[in-house]
Amino acid sequence: MKNGVDNIERMVDILSSLPTIGKKTARRLTYFILKQDIEYANKFSSTLLDLVQNVNLCKVCYNFTELEVCKICQSEKRDKSKICVVEDPSDVSYIDNTNEFSGLFHVLHGVINPLNNINAEDLKIRELINRLQGVDEVIIALNPNVESDITAQYLANLIKPLNIKVTKLASGIPLGTSIEYSDNATISRALEGRVLVR
Amino acid sequence: MKNGVDNIERMVDILSSLPTIGKKTARRLTYFILKQDIEYANKFSSTLLDLVQNVNLCKVCYNFTELEVCKICQSEKRDKSKICVVEDPSDVSYIDNTNEFSGLFHVLHGVINPLNNINAEDLKIRELINRLQGVDEVIIALNPNVESDITAQYLANLIKPLNIKVTKLASGIPLGTSIEYSDNATISRALEGRVLVR
Repeated sequence: MKNGVDNIERMVDILSSLPTIGKKTARRLTYFILKQDIEYANKFSSTLLDLVQNVNLCKVCYNFTELEVCKICQSEKRDKSKICVVEDPSDVSYIDNTNEFSGLFHVLHGVINPLNNINAEDLKIRELINRLQGVDEVIIALNPNVESDITAQYLANLIKPLNIKVTKLASGIPLGTSIEYSDNATISRALEGRVLVR
Repeated sequence: MKNGVDNIERMVDILSSLPTIGKKTARRLTYFILKQDIEYANKFSSTLLDLVQNVNLCKVCYNFTELEVCKICQSEKRDKSKICVVEDPSDVSYIDNTNEFSGLFHVLHGVINPLNNINAEDLKIRELINRLQGVDEVIIALNPNVESDITAQYLANLIKPLNIKVTKLASGIPLGTSIEYSDNATISRALEGRVLVR
């Protein structure tokens, strides 16, 4: 027990186990929590327990939900002929917030990565194939990198023989930046995926 | 309940109430917690409750401690003739980690800031004055800004009549940076506080 602040060090340790939080920020957050009244920590703690006790994976799309089947899968308003395939549950909210897509989602929970020993069987790929009845387009919305490209190709090889269209997100120069600040690979992709000006 | 993820939104809200954590990071951290096994959240929650239930303010220096009087104040090895005055409990560990100072600390829990209605009575100033018996130097280690300068002057006016030396941290160009990247006020302070080369 260093300087009698063992509990502080334990809190710093657990906060710095979170992604993007270093030791120095963790210490700052710990002192912030100590400066609040005790109700703050009680609420924090019970919110955390409620979170992990009530949130589970949707039986259909494998997004996080508090229900057996999530609201998106249950909704009558969604276009059930389109499924957007994403890597992580967080991607669902990012894509859904654009209001550009009214179909369903499917969360793979990772991408194929042989170097890290993540194979197709470790992902929710079989579950995707099993729900393709009545679907006419699968939109692959994975992050643009090599592992995702492998995963997208793997999925396309499985799905195309079922006479379902497989598309993926356009990759190119993001809005608001310039060609000058884009790397070579991004410019190449933007050229490769060039579209007709109408 | 938006998409049946009420608990997720509540977790995002409480995480983003922490300093330096925005909504997007909070969401990322929430999904990270959901991906860990339930033991992680249980440990997080109990660490948080242990923290606020066991950590209180030292009766002497007002630093955070789990004891009645903190280890630094209790230590036989510390030089009891010097007190280093800091704004926040976190400053104690930053200064103590340098191993340059072997005296005692005193935490003010703020600085005088008339614009935010923080006056001398709101700080642990009276408690500092009451523990000056046998002290021959008070080192004011506040962050270099206007409010701290006012506070330092206020403390000096109270303490100097007691025949105790009052010093403050040198302010100037930080190690590892250059004059080129320092602002005018910092360069002025460095000139003002110039020291003899021996």
